[in-house]
Formats: sequence, C-alpha cells, structure tokens
Amino acid sequence: MIRVSAFADVPPFARGLVRELRVRWALEEAGLPYRERWIAPEDQDSEAYRRLQPFGQVPTYEEDGLELFESGAIVLHVAERSKVGPSPLMPPDPRGRARMKAWMFAALDTIEPPVQALAEIDLFHAETAWAEERRPGAAEAVRLRLRELARWLEGRDYLEDRFTAADLLMTTVLRILRHTELVAEQPTLDAYVRRCEARPAFQRALDAHLAPFAQRTG
Amino acid sequence: MIRVSAFADVPPFARGLVRELRVRWALEEAGLPYRERWIAPEDQDSEAYRRLQPFGQVPTYEEDGLELFESGAIVLHVAERSKVGPSPLMPPDPRGRARMKAWMFAALDTIEPPVQALAEIDLFHAETAWAEERRPGAAEAVRLRLRELARWLEGRDYLEDRFTAADLLMTTVLRILRHTELVAEQPTLDAYVRRCEARPAFQRALDAHLAPFAQRTG
Repeated sequence: MIRVSAFADVPPFARGLVRELRVRWALEEAGLPYRERWIAPEDQDSEAYRRLQPFGQVPTYEEDGLELFESGAIVLHVAERSKVGPSPLMPPDPRGRARMKAWMFAALDTIEPPVQALAEIDLFHAETAWAEERRPGAAEAVRLRLRELARWLEGRDYLEDRFTAADLLMTTVLRILRHTELVAEQPTLDAYVRRCEARPAFQRALDAHLAPFAQRTG
Repeated sequence: MIRVSAFADVPPFARGLVRELRVRWALEEAGLPYRERWIAPEDQDSEAYRRLQPFGQVPTYEEDGLELFESGAIVLHVAERSKVGPSPLMPPDPRGRARMKAWMFAALDTIEPPVQALAEIDLFHAETAWAEERRPGAAEAVRLRLRELARWLEGRDYLEDRFTAADLLMTTVLRILRHTELVAEQPTLDAYVRRCEARPAFQRALDAHLAPFAQRTG
C-alpha cells in the first residue's frame, strides 16, 4: 500500500494549497489507492521523519521500500509508474514525455518561485515596511510570467496535446494566487485552471485533503 | 547535432552562473558533442525564440526535432538519453533513478528558491530600503536549508550512492551563493561543492561557458 505524508492540521490560509494535494491528485488520476502518514508539527524535526524528508516538509511517498520526497518527483514517479496500459498522466511517446517534463520543471522552477514569493509577502510579511515597498515589484514579476504562460496557452486546452502531470503541477502552482486577482486578469489562464480543477480526480483529491481540517473546525 | 542556447554575453556577476552551464556539464559528462545557438538580448522576445522557450530564458535544447527547455528537464533528458551502456549521470536501477529525481527537484524547488531570492537582493536590489530590511531574514532562510542539506551529506560523498544529475544541479545551485560565506560556513557542504566542481567534465563545461565572455573583455 502506498503511503503519503500529510499534515493533520494546517492554518486556514494553507488549506487547499499544501503540496501533498499534488500527490493525492496524481494518485486519483492513476486510480491508485493510498493512505496517509499523518504528520504533526513536532514530527517534522524528528530523526525518523528527517530520514524520509531531509527538509521536514510534506509530502513523502512510501511504497514497497521505495521512499521519495519532493512533490514534483513523486508526481513524476506516479506518472511513470503505470504498470498496466497507458499512463493516465503521461503521453506514450518519448518526445511527449520529454515535453511533459519540461513543463513540470517550468511549473515548479519558473512559475512557482515568483508566485510563492508573492504569497509569502501577503501571508507572512504583510505588516512589515519592506513588504509594502517590495510588493508591487513582486506582483509585476508574477504578472510577467502569467502573461507569458497565457500567451503559450492561447488556443490550447493544455500545456501540450493532452492533460498530463505538468498541467496537474501548473494548476496547483496557480492556485497559490487564489487570494489575488492575478490569474483572473488573464482569461485564458483562468479558463485553464478551471478546466483542470473540474477533473473528478482533482475534486476527490481536494475533498480528501480538506476532510481532516473540516473535522477539526466542525 | 545537439544545439544548446546560450547568451553571447552576460554581465560579469552572471558569468559562471547562467543555467546553460548545467546542460553543458551534463553533455560533457555524457560525452555528447553539441554546439551553441547564440542568443542576443533582442532575440529573447522574438516570436521564433518564444516558440522554443515560452519565457525567453536560456537554455533550450534541440536534437532531431525534439525541442526542450528548462535546465532541470534538459539535464534529466541527457541523463536518461544514454543509448549505449550505462548512463554516466544516472543509476541503473529504478529505485536509484527515482531517488535521483527526488534530489533533482529538491535542488531546484527547495534549495534554489531561497538561494536565488537572496542573490537577487544582493545583485539587483542592494541599494533599496526594503532589501536592507529583508536581507537578514532571506539569509536565515538560506542558512536553514544549507544546514539541513549539510546534515544529510554528513558522511556521504554525494546526495546518494554515486555522482548523478542531482549532484550536478545541486552544485550549480550552491554556486549562486559564491558572493557570500554561506556555503563556507558549512564545511561538509563546502567540501561537497569542491568535490563536484573538481570533475573534469565540469571544468570543460565552465571553460566553454566562459570562453565567449573572455574574448569580449580581452
């Protein structure tokens, strides 16, 4: 049985954004059952968890003695893992697979860093003088990347010919901006995110991700 | 013939750090010849280059009709590309390959974002009031990740059992801190970077990367 680490509770601003949601979504698309390894804040620094995840983050992935970390690597592993039939997350041809990986890295290395920087300003530093001075430049850096991404997506439903693990990652990156209007400013991008979020596998993953938090506040 | 895009000139602070160095290094390790597609600043926004690289960055990679972008994806492609014999950049077993990918994403998604944020403060914003106020926190965020990475590397020569594409990426990420003492503060990490940089393939890649700049200033 596959095990994925997840936080037993997170503050409201992080609900729906924690990176283990990416792995849940990939597993739902692949039709692979899993269970959670619940992590409490004090577990993140434990020797046992640091052996699994050197930086104390979630998610981790365990399956038959294989231990992985980093959401991007785990989603790629799930995409490549299909043992029977075509992968639901990956094209069958080598060129399509290479293009998918290019977009996976683009989502996490070109789009996510400015997006995450802006989110950290808004969520953790909004009261500081430096954040007020820095925010316009940080927002403009995000806008530039979103315009470039929207330009690429013009006339396309997905980053390449079909939904892949790259669209999964890109959608979860763009969701980090939900507290802003930056995605809504780009209708092509807004439609793209809605298209990907409408997938039943995403909805199941999101429900599973949110369930423990609802129990705590309910 | 493989073609890799590179800037015909960059300012001195960026020499030795441009991301196409990663691809040159991987190709040198793999023993694959290539030539450059030289990019001038005005080319970055051209329609033709944006079709190759939607964000106008370097590097791109072209080979037999396959067009790739994102240094992480290209290095992974080169690692997986070996058609004859074992890959010089990747373990032969599925578990080792999955672990290598976890560390590739860790280098670019967990270590590089705070490293790059600090470098941008120092290189582009040092004169601003917000940067002065923000820098201590940004440096502390880097220190935390470097301590965690050094803890993992304690007693190890490489991130896993042998040198892989993940060590290649991690080394190039840590090099971004060369204008600081942050890596030198961690002797384990400092030795690790020197060990990887001592590889003949790295030295050949660095020489090739720097050659056009030397001609310009010489």
